Amino acid sequence: MEDRILLAHGSGGRLAHELVERTFVVALDNPMLSRLDDSAVAEFNGRLAFTTDSYVVSPISFPGGDIGRLAVCGTVNDLAMSGAKPLYLSLAFIIEEGLPLNDLKQVVDSVALTAREAGVSIVTGDTKVVHRGSADRLFINTAGIGIIGEGVDISGSNARPGDKVLLSGTIGDHGMAVLSVREGLSFSTTLESDCAPLNAMVADMLNACSDIRCLRDPTRGGLATTLNELAGQSGVSIRIDEGSIPVREEVRAACEMLGLDPLYIANEGKLVAIVPSGHADRVLQAIRDNPCGRGASVIGEVGAENPGRVVMNTGIGSSRIVDMLTGDPLPRIC
Amino acid sequence: MEDRILLAHGSGGRLAHELVERTFVVALDNPMLSRLDDSAVAEFNGRLAFTTDSYVVSPISFPGGDIGRLAVCGTVNDLAMSGAKPLYLSLAFIIEEGLPLNDLKQVVDSVALTAREAGVSIVTGDTKVVHRGSADRLFINTAGIGIIGEGVDISGSNARPGDKVLLSGTIGDHGMAVLSVREGLSFSTTLESDCAPLNAMVADMLNACSDIRCLRDPTRGGLATTLNELAGQSGVSIRIDEGSIPVREEVRAACEMLGLDPLYIANEGKLVAIVPSGHADRVLQAIRDNPCGRGASVIGEVGAENPGRVVMNTGIGSSRIVDMLTGDPLPRIC
Repeated sequence: MEDRILLAHGSGGRLAHELVERTFVVALDNPMLSRLDDSAVAEFNGRLAFTTDSYVVSPISFPGGDIGRLAVCGTVNDLAMSGAKPLYLSLAFIIEEGLPLNDLKQVVDSVALTAREAGVSIVTGDTKVVHRGSADRLFINTAGIGIIGEGVDISGSNARPGDKVLLSGTIGDHGMAVLSVREGLSFSTTLESDCAPLNAMVADMLNACSDIRCLRDPTRGGLATTLNELAGQSGVSIRIDEGSIPVREEVRAACEMLGLDPLYIANEGKLVAIVPSGHADRVLQAIRDNPCGRGASVIGEVGAENPGRVVMNTGIGSSRIVDMLTGDPLPRIC
Repeated sequence: MEDRILLAHGSGGRLAHELVERTFVVALDNPMLSRLDDSAVAEFNGRLAFTTDSYVVSPISFPGGDIGRLAVCGTVNDLAMSGAKPLYLSLAFIIEEGLPLNDLKQVVDSVALTAREAGVSIVTGDTKVVHRGSADRLFINTAGIGIIGEGVDISGSNARPGDKVLLSGTIGDHGMAVLSVREGLSFSTTLESDCAPLNAMVADMLNACSDIRCLRDPTRGGLATTLNELAGQSGVSIRIDEGSIPVREEVRAACEMLGLDPLYIANEGKLVAIVPSGHADRVLQAIRDNPCGRGASVIGEVGAENPGRVVMNTGIGSSRIVDMLTGDPLPRIC
């Protein structure tokens, strides 16, 4: 077998079949995938959640993860943010001709490992190869299916005045980790991406309180954009306290050096939860009991005035409007 | 709003939200999509089919279709080839910075039109933008969900000796249409892609005979590769008659000029069906009654000897082995 990806690996012909059988099916093996029919087939009864994301992160490997881990976590987390138990993922590659086959294998291994960690199966897939120069190394798309338990009703439009806003830990880790390796920045400690599947944590949270109103992972656009989305969808305001939002010292330092605001930097292993005030302590404890949520805190409260607005009480006693991200300080972060 | 796609359209921030709301949701509008939560949610009870494909065709527009129509038809057809009724599609764009917004809008309109034609809803999506030169204009991924009716059991591994092999019409139309526009070839008649959703035809076929063994659409790799897949998965041989395989005169001429074999050229609106011999006439009639299947014919038969082999009786009275595609004569055909 060739040691680099050729156009013929995407042709649907013999090399494509060899790639699927020797590289994908071996690493991702499960009965639904290895049928190799046009679709995967499974019994499903209940409320289905369905989501998709493409991943174009550059470079494809970074401290704390790679594009494969990201592609599983991102879609698993989107399902979890709908209150669903993630079950099945699709996996589609767009590969630039000439990519070393070993680089692809490493990504596939990372997909396999992360899928096992999250308890999901890769059940269907696709590979396309484009000419050298027509793509940058490797893009991935994953779509995912999950099942939503009875009584669970989570949506960005469910926040109500008086609800508490919880954040599961430090912000900006993923974005600054990718940026640091991309720009060759070096710090005394290594910045690591927080990239992780959050479905087990969400399951624990729902066990603690089935009445969670909103869940969202603050990925592209960061915490500020996510809070603006939730305020907009629910027609409420959100007030947060700057001092309650955890930021790692090295992330803060890197942001200051580069003129970036951690509120707008992507996370890949954090979530925002909006819960009825009386349940906040219980949900907070459930988050903190999970390894991904040890640094969780209550960061603010939902209000009725100025629907759609997010306001932050700053450290110096004033307050300021926190807008959605405009522009893109960090392209290709996920 | 800008008239070209900027990196910020993929940032998750304000421009990304405007693109989603003004371009995607307006064209593709349905209640599941316009919730704008992390996942689409729907009740589902039964056997679920799940599939994915990415589309990297170049150029993005060609006689008879464009990348948007292709992205809907390809995934709808993969679901239909599992005997499923397609229901929901995801739609994910990877866009090169600088793409004219109008080009994107045309593709989205084509997606919307084709989705209506096929009776499916686009319920969830994603947009990523990469730097100029890091992708070639526009790539699309669609994943799809369908429901398989009771008693339907279609798989590439179900063919049995004695079964008949049916083909729904002319081969090579899609591949040669894309190639002709790419290479600036001109013929007295225009080659048109056969790109079309086949789910209505499959539903009619299943009404005529619920005992269909295999269905597959001969896309990349063409009819030859599809027949090899089916022979391999089922552990049978397939013998076809060259004279029974319809090829348009202009496709045959273009293939001869370029040294290509229509058996290996991609189709996007044709299917191969393998059915029990006694049901072949009924299924053939159901195919022919559909506008996409007027040129259907029985092209061969399944045998027991030499499992995995495909043999063709040629026009001159001899026979030859038809292998799977090796190499890739037409990269980026879908």
